[in-house]
Amino acid sequence: MNPDIPAGYEPIDGISPYDDDPAFPLHRNGKMELRPTVRVRDNAGLALAYTPGVGRVSQAIADDPSLGWQFTWRSNTILIVTDGTAVLGLGDIGPLAALPVMEGKSLLFKEFGGVDCVPICLGTQDVDEIVETVVRIAPAYGGINLEDISAPRCFEIERRLQARLDIPVFHDDQHGTAVVAAAALRNAARLTGRSFSDLRVVVSGAGAAGIAVANMLLAAGIGDIAVCDRVGVLSPERDDLGPVKRDMAERTNLAGIRGPLVNALQGADVLIGVSGGTIGQDAVASMAPEAIVFALANPVPEVHPDVAHAAGAAVVATGRSDFPNQINNVLAFPGIFRGALDVGATRITEGMKLAAVDAIAGLVGDDLAADRIVPDPFDPRLAPSVSAAVARAARAEGVTRDAAAAQVDLRRTAV
Amino acid sequence: MNPDIPAGYEPIDGISPYDDDPAFPLHRNGKMELRPTVRVRDNAGLALAYTPGVGRVSQAIADDPSLGWQFTWRSNTILIVTDGTAVLGLGDIGPLAALPVMEGKSLLFKEFGGVDCVPICLGTQDVDEIVETVVRIAPAYGGINLEDISAPRCFEIERRLQARLDIPVFHDDQHGTAVVAAAALRNAARLTGRSFSDLRVVVSGAGAAGIAVANMLLAAGIGDIAVCDRVGVLSPERDDLGPVKRDMAERTNLAGIRGPLVNALQGADVLIGVSGGTIGQDAVASMAPEAIVFALANPVPEVHPDVAHAAGAAVVATGRSDFPNQINNVLAFPGIFRGALDVGATRITEGMKLAAVDAIAGLVGDDLAADRIVPDPFDPRLAPSVSAAVARAARAEGVTRDAAAAQVDLRRTAV
Repeated sequence: MNPDIPAGYEPIDGISPYDDDPAFPLHRNGKMELRPTVRVRDNAGLALAYTPGVGRVSQAIADDPSLGWQFTWRSNTILIVTDGTAVLGLGDIGPLAALPVMEGKSLLFKEFGGVDCVPICLGTQDVDEIVETVVRIAPAYGGINLEDISAPRCFEIERRLQARLDIPVFHDDQHGTAVVAAAALRNAARLTGRSFSDLRVVVSGAGAAGIAVANMLLAAGIGDIAVCDRVGVLSPERDDLGPVKRDMAERTNLAGIRGPLVNALQGADVLIGVSGGTIGQDAVASMAPEAIVFALANPVPEVHPDVAHAAGAAVVATGRSDFPNQINNVLAFPGIFRGALDVGATRITEGMKLAAVDAIAGLVGDDLAADRIVPDPFDPRLAPSVSAAVARAARAEGVTRDAAAAQVDLRRTAV
Repeated sequence: MNPDIPAGYEPIDGISPYDDDPAFPLHRNGKMELRPTVRVRDNAGLALAYTPGVGRVSQAIADDPSLGWQFTWRSNTILIVTDGTAVLGLGDIGPLAALPVMEGKSLLFKEFGGVDCVPICLGTQDVDEIVETVVRIAPAYGGINLEDISAPRCFEIERRLQARLDIPVFHDDQHGTAVVAAAALRNAARLTGRSFSDLRVVVSGAGAAGIAVANMLLAAGIGDIAVCDRVGVLSPERDDLGPVKRDMAERTNLAGIRGPLVNALQGADVLIGVSGGTIGQDAVASMAPEAIVFALANPVPEVHPDVAHAAGAAVVATGRSDFPNQINNVLAFPGIFRGALDVGATRITEGMKLAAVDAIAGLVGDDLAADRIVPDPFDPRLAPSVSAAVARAARAEGVTRDAAAAQVDLRRTAV
């Protein structure tokens, strides 16, 4: 028995072969439960929380659906939806095997953002079926967090769901990663005395995270980005690109670089690896002096931090908790959804994500150092700062239910 | 402000028009939340509950899906699914307005049965779409409780879902009502000195509850049942019956009664009303002496208890908490699912429901009286008794995952 096993754990049928790994007893019977927020102690309580009292609440919502935001859990509860096709570094392991990860994310949503989050693990990988299923089960929920759905299906699923629903739809593997990477990059630029918008950036990987990171950096004002897939740099004359990569090729690579990743890395200020491949020490050494290297593949970074530093990199970040500068989505998603739910946002815009970038980057403040370009996940200021910034941006952009209702009222007045 | 409003409630934007009714502040922001069952206090905790630790658990489940029952919340978590078409006495109020009722049921599942229950309110009323949607979202859940879905669609939805899924599918409006009504009837027969199987029973109503009550009583050994819809007694030569009512007509009404409900009531021992219509004092007076009258329509019983007693009824039950003998599904569903989950049942059989009937009826024991034919919902022996009986029946019938796995092994051995 491992001494780290939590107290109170009783193995079923004696010692299980999994007990040597403390992750297994921790996961026994799952990590999340549902709990009442009101107490029902007697028949009088039953008559309010259930019939006949609940009937009056239901009738009021039937008469005015906007009351659903006040008198149900929808105001604070989202769905986390996966089809199990791109789970962590494990790949297509199916919906049931993805459930521990979804429960883990639900736990993080609650602990860090106070957001209630219900796991949905879909027994289908068909885009149409996924979209229809999520639309049908959405009425009781205030947002959709898509998770671990493989590219390029994830792009279409997110786009179609957001077009159909008036609640936020957010693919965390794309946007959570992009927000935290952009925040880290802001601080890395400040630390190395560079102008953020003048950075020459290479993104290695054109899947969900790579495309989203590139889009986020473009929105944040970086002009010169080259995005690479396994074949090489995305450029418009390549004839092997699907629509998502083609669109990206047309908006990036201003220098017109051709060929493999190493061509793009020569003289670049920044490498952001979200590919899972291996990048050699020579390639890193060919970058600009005091280069910034984010090797985010998990569990094996594209470049080991020691190798990157040996090649001259000034700042190195990874996706792992056992190296400095972990680019961890948990810095972003709890606060982003907290802010979106707090103001009744109907979507999560580029502006809201950029507000989250600034809030996350800003928290590091005077502690900025080569091994401290992002805040600690347990920093108690984190989710409140991010949620406040996101809420402000949503209000400023008018993407809240209240704003939409006011718009309708204005139109009525005009008629 | 109503003095019953719970402490700590702060009205939004001053006094709301709903604050006079204590059901509304009780429902503010809903009645259920998600909570972690494990604590994550630091990066070491994160590394177990989330990456990389969770990845080892997910990989183990991918390699052996049966481990999903040990290391996820699936072992204790079910879905409650409605389309909002038959909510309480309110009818077709839609999925969002149904949510407070689903949250209420989730609360009852947890408080009385320790079962975690996630509300799903569907934005479709199409049978095919409902079946496909529930099948697709089922992988993370251990059971399906169907709720407030109108007849006759509810019969087909339940049947098709149970055929597709190897977890229990249970339409509570049918079977919960039937189990509690049957338990109450067992005790009413004992109280009035009648033989249960010799009872002459009239069921008024051939919707979800009426059909299920009749089926339950047939399974419990009652031979003479007449089921009536709005037109009159179901009988095989009627040409206006759909398949469900036709099937029922062929298995009931041994006396060959024709015409309206009042014809069937003459001389009958038992009336079970689940129709919502009105039944007159004369019709009750035409029943056998010391008749048993269950007038279960909510909120207005088919016969007021005072009227039924005045007409000679010896035992009267209703669906309301403010009269004696409330036929309340909460006596059944928490214990039934608790027992089914405890032994890994793959369905809920007639035998398991009959075991629940006996357990519920048996709890009244020596307290049996005309105003006490069912136990109190807050009786602490209730859910443990029901769940133990249901679990025993499931094991005896071999409808558990373990039994199914053993069966597969036997077949392998035979080859």
